[in-house]
Amino acid sequence: MSNTFGTLFRITTFGESHGAGIGVVIDGCPAGVAVEAAHIQAALDRRRPGQSDLTTPRKEADTVQIQSGLFEGMTTGTPISLFIPNADQRSDDYSHIAHAYRPSHADYTYDAKYGRRDHRGGGRSSARETAARVAAGAVAARLLAHFGIEVKAYVSAVGEIEVPLSYEELDLGLTETNLVRCPHPETAALMEARIRAARDAHDTVGGVITGVATGVPAGLGEPVFDKLPAVLGHALLSINAVKGFEFGSGFAGTRLAGSQHNDAFYTDEAGRVRTRTNHSGGSQGGISNGQDINFRVAFKPVATILQAQQTINDQGESISLAGRGRHDPCVLPRAVPIVEAMTQLVLADLLLRARANRL
Amino acid sequence: MSNTFGTLFRITTFGESHGAGIGVVIDGCPAGVAVEAAHIQAALDRRRPGQSDLTTPRKEADTVQIQSGLFEGMTTGTPISLFIPNADQRSDDYSHIAHAYRPSHADYTYDAKYGRRDHRGGGRSSARETAARVAAGAVAARLLAHFGIEVKAYVSAVGEIEVPLSYEELDLGLTETNLVRCPHPETAALMEARIRAARDAHDTVGGVITGVATGVPAGLGEPVFDKLPAVLGHALLSINAVKGFEFGSGFAGTRLAGSQHNDAFYTDEAGRVRTRTNHSGGSQGGISNGQDINFRVAFKPVATILQAQQTINDQGESISLAGRGRHDPCVLPRAVPIVEAMTQLVLADLLLRARANRL
Amino acid sequence: MSNTFGTLFRITTFGESHGAGIGVVIDGCPAGVAVEAAHIQAALDRRRPGQSDLTTPRKEADTVQIQSGLFEGMTTGTPISLFIPNADQRSDDYSHIAHAYRPSHADYTYDAKYGRRDHRGGGRSSARETAARVAAGAVAARLLAHFGIEVKAYVSAVGEIEVPLSYEELDLGLTETNLVRCPHPETAALMEARIRAARDAHDTVGGVITGVATGVPAGLGEPVFDKLPAVLGHALLSINAVKGFEFGSGFAGTRLAGSQHNDAFYTDEAGRVRTRTNHSGGSQGGISNGQDINFRVAFKPVATILQAQQTINDQGESISLAGRGRHDPCVLPRAVPIVEAMTQLVLADLLLRARANRL
Amino acid sequence: MSNTFGTLFRITTFGESHGAGIGVVIDGCPAGVAVEAAHIQAALDRRRPGQSDLTTPRKEADTVQIQSGLFEGMTTGTPISLFIPNADQRSDDYSHIAHAYRPSHADYTYDAKYGRRDHRGGGRSSARETAARVAAGAVAARLLAHFGIEVKAYVSAVGEIEVPLSYEELDLGLTETNLVRCPHPETAALMEARIRAARDAHDTVGGVITGVATGVPAGLGEPVFDKLPAVLGHALLSINAVKGFEFGSGFAGTRLAGSQHNDAFYTDEAGRVRTRTNHSGGSQGGISNGQDINFRVAFKPVATILQAQQTINDQGESISLAGRGRHDPCVLPRAVPIVEAMTQLVLADLLLRARANRL
Repeated sequence: MSNTFGTLFRITTFGESHGAGIGVVIDGCPAGVAVEAAHIQAALDRRRPGQSDLTTPRKEADTVQIQSGLFEGMTTGTPISLFIPNADQRSDDYSHIAHAYRPSHADYTYDAKYGRRDHRGGGRSSARETAARVAAGAVAARLLAHFGIEVKAYVSAVGEIEVPLSYEELDLGLTETNLVRCPHPETAALMEARIRAARDAHDTVGGVITGVATGVPAGLGEPVFDKLPAVLGHALLSINAVKGFEFGSGFAGTRLAGSQHNDAFYTDEAGRVRTRTNHSGGSQGGISNGQDINFRVAFKPVATILQAQQTINDQGESISLAGRGRHDPCVLPRAVPIVEAMTQLVLADLLLRARANRL
Repeated sequence: MSNTFGTLFRITTFGESHGAGIGVVIDGCPAGVAVEAAHIQAALDRRRPGQSDLTTPRKEADTVQIQSGLFEGMTTGTPISLFIPNADQRSDDYSHIAHAYRPSHADYTYDAKYGRRDHRGGGRSSARETAARVAAGAVAARLLAHFGIEVKAYVSAVGEIEVPLSYEELDLGLTETNLVRCPHPETAALMEARIRAARDAHDTVGGVITGVATGVPAGLGEPVFDKLPAVLGHALLSINAVKGFEFGSGFAGTRLAGSQHNDAFYTDEAGRVRTRTNHSGGSQGGISNGQDINFRVAFKPVATILQAQQTINDQGESISLAGRGRHDPCVLPRAVPIVEAMTQLVLADLLLRARANRL
Repeated sequence: MSNTFGTLFRITTFGESHGAGIGVVIDGCPAGVAVEAAHIQAALDRRRPGQSDLTTPRKEADTVQIQSGLFEGMTTGTPISLFIPNADQRSDDYSHIAHAYRPSHADYTYDAKYGRRDHRGGGRSSARETAARVAAGAVAARLLAHFGIEVKAYVSAVGEIEVPLSYEELDLGLTETNLVRCPHPETAALMEARIRAARDAHDTVGGVITGVATGVPAGLGEPVFDKLPAVLGHALLSINAVKGFEFGSGFAGTRLAGSQHNDAFYTDEAGRVRTRTNHSGGSQGGISNGQDINFRVAFKPVATILQAQQTINDQGESISLAGRGRHDPCVLPRAVPIVEAMTQLVLADLLLRARANRL
Repeated sequence: MSNTFGTLFRITTFGESHGAGIGVVIDGCPAGVAVEAAHIQAALDRRRPGQSDLTTPRKEADTVQIQSGLFEGMTTGTPISLFIPNADQRSDDYSHIAHAYRPSHADYTYDAKYGRRDHRGGGRSSARETAARVAAGAVAARLLAHFGIEVKAYVSAVGEIEVPLSYEELDLGLTETNLVRCPHPETAALMEARIRAARDAHDTVGGVITGVATGVPAGLGEPVFDKLPAVLGHALLSINAVKGFEFGSGFAGTRLAGSQHNDAFYTDEAGRVRTRTNHSGGSQGGISNGQDINFRVAFKPVATILQAQQTINDQGESISLAGRGRHDPCVLPRAVPIVEAMTQLVLADLLLRARANRL
C-alpha cells in the first residue's frame, strides 16, 4: 500500500516483474468514452522493451487484455480492468540476487519494510509496473481528448546533452521520428550516441524529460493540498528512477526578480484571459490558468550496470556483484510514454474533481 | 477541496487571510504524545511576519489556541484542533484589488474555478494558510521525537547566491543565528544584503531551501504511488510559491553515470546496513533506507512587488496596478519552518502507515 | 481517526464534551451557496439540550461561530469552519467516573484503545460531538435546497409505542408541533408520557427515528461499495446510541415473496419513470431511482441512568456507580435533527460525486 | 466509482456478469501471511452457483487465479490480484432485457446514472461481483487467524421461518451440515421446504443472516465516523439485496429500558474485562470491547421471478416481462460466505488501523 492513485479517476495497479502479469483497474472513468484495445496497445508499444537498440533487448509483446468496463466499445462507468501477461521471463537470470542487495535498487528497502520480497526481476519494485500506468493513461487520454486536452512529453536531456531550445521553439511532431524521442534531430543524434557509448561501457546514463499539456482549461487543481503541480509532482515522483520535478520556471526561476518573473495578464482578440509570459507553468495558486502546463522530470542513471560492484547480501556480508540479464542503458526513451500517462491520469482526475467546484 | 493532507496522520486546514483566523484539525495523532502550547508557539514564532527587517513589517502575534485533543498535557488520540486568530488586519489595503487580477497571483484562477473569491489579502490563496501547517508540524515533530527522527531545513540559496557547501559539511546548529536562516554565516550575510537590495528596489527575490531528516528508520514510504519522495514532493509542492523539488542527487544526478551514481552498501561496526554515498537521498524504491533524507525546494520570487505592472481586471480590461500594503521581499527565511513542518507531517504519516506492513 | 466523513462534500469534526468547544470543518461545499449563521443556528436549536422537560436540563446556548469559508454571505469553495464553544460545563459532575467504567459507555473501550481518555462528560465519546454534525448538515441542506431535495425525520417509536401509520400517511408538517417530534399527535402524547415515566423512574428509554428524503433525482449512489443505502447506513450507524438501520421494506421485507416485494415501473403523466410501490426505499442497485428515500434508525436507551449499577474501575475492581449530573431520559427528540443532518451530508456528497458519472 | 473498500486493508473489485471475468485487487495485506489458492477456492465453493437444488442451476466452476502478491506461498506486502474467469455464460438468456427495466433491478438506475449499461446478466449490478469479495475475504481470514479472530455466519430466517435460539445457544459447527446453512437442523429442514415451495411457485423468498465474530480484541473501530458498527454496516449494506443491518440488541433493543439494556462490567478469573450481557453486540462507543461482535443482515426476496410482471422499457413504454434463465429462489444460503467475507474484510482493516492508536 498504496497502489492506488487518484481521487475520482482512480487507478490501482498490481503485478510483479516475473509473476503472471501486470495489471490495472481504472475506477471512475465516466461512461461514454470510446476506447479500443488499439488505443491502449499503441501506448504500450511505445513503452515496451526491445523496441530499439537503445533499450533492453528483452522482448515483451506487452499485449493488453481488457477484462471489464467496456461494452460495445464504450466505457460504462464501471471499473476497467486491463491485464498484461508477462511473457519473456527468465527468472534464472535473477537467482544470483535472491540474497544480494543490489546498489541503489530496492532489494534492501523491501526486505527492511516487509521482511521478504520476490527477488525475481525486482518483483514489485521493477519498472515493469509502469506498463500498467501507461495502459491506464491511454484510457485517460481518450477522456481528455473529448475536452481538447493533449499531453506530450519528450527527452530534453541525456546526461550532459541538452536540447538547446524551449518546448515552444520545437516541433513536438518530431518526437517520434527518432529512437530517443527527442524532437530536436541534431540533439537526438548526439543523445543516441551518448546512450550507445554508455551501453558499450557497460554503464548507464540519466536525463530529463519535458512534458507539456495543451488545451487545459482554467480551473483545474484543488487547493490547498491538491494543487495541480503538487498532484502532478506526486504522480511523476512516483515513477521509478525519478529524482526531481520542476514546473514553469522551476529552479532557474529562483534567480529571477519578481518583476522579471511575474506573468502579465492580457485579454486576447478572442476575449480570453492570457499571460504574456508563462513562468508560472500554467498554474497559479495551484490552479490551471489556461496557459500550457509545462514541467521537467529528472531521471537518475539506471542502477543495474553490467560491471562488478561492491555491496552486501542479506546477511550483511560484503560481496561483489555484476548485473546480468538484459537491461536498459538509459530509460529515458521508454519513459516518455510513462510521463505522458501519469500526466494524463492527473489531468483526468482534476478535470472530474473540478466539476464539484460550483453550484 | 482538498484541504486535507495525510492518510493516518492527517491534517485539515481552514481559514482566510482576513477572516476570523487560520486553523487546523489534526486527526490520527497517536495517544500519549506530550504536547504543550509552547511547542507549537515556538514553531509559529519562526514563521510569523514582522520578525525582522527582511520580512513583511506586518505584525501578527500568531498566538495558537488549542481547542481539543489534549488532556492533562497529552494527546488522547482524538482530533487536535488548533486555531490562530487573525489580528493585524487592514482589509482596506486590498480594496484596490477587489476586481483586479494581480500578475502571478491566484486572483484570476480562483475566479475561474469558483466564480467568486474573498479578495482580502488573497483570501484562502494567501500564504497565511501555512501558519496552520506549521502549527500541525510542531505536533508531528513531537511524535517524531519519540522515534529519534529530526527534521531541519535552511536557506541554501537566495537568488544567485548559494551556500558553497553540502549539508553534511555545514553546522546546522548555526541556522538560527542569522535573520536569513542560513547556517553558513558568510553566505548568510550576502543573502541578507541581497534581500535588502531587492526590498529597496521595490522588487523581490526567490531562492532554495534545503531540508534534511535524520534518524529516519529504514522502511518508510508506501510503493508504488506513495513512495517517500512522491509524498514528500506532493507536500512541498503544495506550499505557496514552490516551483520545484528534488531529492538526493536530483537534477544534477541526471548527468552522472550509473557507476558513479550507485550507492554502495556496507555494514558498519554496529552491524547496520549503510551506503557509502547517498545520491539516493535516503530513499530507494520509494522506501527510506536509513540514510539521511535530503532534498531541495525551489521558491519563486514573491509576486507582490511595490511597483506598477500591467494587468487586467475581472472585466478583462487592461489596468495598471502597484502592490500596496506590507509584503515580504523574500519568503525564504519564513519558509524554513514551513518546509520543516510539511516534512514532519509526511514522516509522521509514513511512520504510522509502515506499522501495517508486516504481520 | 477517523473524524472525517464524505468524499467530495467532506466534514471533519473535533472537540470534547468539556473542552473549549465542538467544531467542524466542511471541505468541498461548492461556491455560490447562500448560507447565514441563522440557518445553522436554527438546526442547532433543535438539537441543543434544555429545550424541554423531555431532555436534559443542562443549558447550552450552542451558539455557532463561522470562522471561514463565507464571503458576503456566500460560500466561496474554501473550507467552512464552524465552532460551538462549550458553555455550561460542570466538570466536577464527572470526577466520580475518572477511573470508573460506566456500563454500556465508551470509558473502557477508549482506555483499551488509546491507553488514556478525557473522562469529563465522556470526552470525545459524548453525543455532544453531534452538534458539529448538525451544524454541517445545515450547510448541506442549503446546497440540497438548490436541487429541490428535502430531508425530514421524525420519531416513529419510543419504547413499545409506535406511530401506527406509514410516513406517506402522515403530515410531516406536524413534527415540530410537539416536544417529542412525532407527527402523529395522539402517539406523540403517549410518547411524552412514556419518556416522563422513564425519567421519573430514574431510567431511560430507546426508540426509532424514521427519515425521508424527497426530490432526490435518479442516479445518486456509487456502486459497488458506496451504494446509497450503504453510505447512508454508515452515516447513521456512526451516531451515538444507534443499533440498527433499515431502508425501504427493511427487515419486514424479508418476509415478503419476490412477487409481492417487487416495485412495478410505470411512466407517469409527466413522462417520468415511477414505481407503483416503494419497497426499494428509493434505491435500486444502490442508486436512487427518483422515489422517496426512506429508512428507519434504531436508538438504544440512554446508558446513563440515575440509579446504582454494578461495574468495575480501571483497576478491574468491582464498584457500584450511579449516574449524576443532567442527562436525557430519551435521546429521540434531540436525535431527529442529527438523523436529518447525516442524511443531508450523505446526499450532498453523492450529488457532487454523481457529476463525474458521464462524459 | 467507488469500487474500492477499506482504508489500510483495501480491496478493489471489477468485472461484469458476462464479461471476461470477475476480479479483485487486495492492497495492504501485511507481508508474511501464508495463503494458498485452496483457501480462497474453499470460500468460493460455498458461494458458487449450482451447489444444490436450492440455488440457481447455473454452473460456474468459479476457479480463482492468483495473479500477483504471493511468493513462495506467502504474502509479500504487494497487491494481491485474484481473477475468476466467467465460464458458463449464456448471454442470449438476457437479450429480452436489453431495453427492459426489470422491476426492483438496477437496469433503470444504471441507465439513469451512466446513460448506458451492459445488460447481460445485469452487468456490473449482478451479484456475481460478490465472488470477488468472497475471494478477498478468504485472504483477510488468513490474516485474522493469526490473531485468533474468527467470523461465522448462518441463515437465521427464511421468510417467516426463524431459528428459535440465539447464536450462543446454537452449535455453529452445524451450519454446513445442511443445504440452507442453518445450524438448527429442525429449522433448516423447514427453511429448505420453504425455499423449494417458493421455487415451485416461480417465486422467491428473503430472509436474515446472523453473523458472529469471536476473538476480536478490545480496541477495534475508529470513532467518530468509522465506528466498528458503522463500517460493518456500510460493508454489509453494500451487498446486493440487503435492506437492513442491526447489531447487538438492534431494533428489539429500542424497547428495553436503560436499566435492562446496560451491560454490567466484571473482571473474570483470568483478569479480563467482560460484560455479563452483550446487548452492545461487542461494540461500545464504536470500539470493540472484547465480547463477541454479533449482528443481523436482512435480505429482500430475489427480484428475478419466473412469472410475468408489468414494467416499462427504456422508451418508457409499458411491457410485460417474465424472468428467464437460471436464478436463485433464495440467496440466503449462498450469501452466508459473502456476509462472512465482508465482515472479515472490515475486521482486517480495523485491526491494521488500530495499530496507529498509540505511541
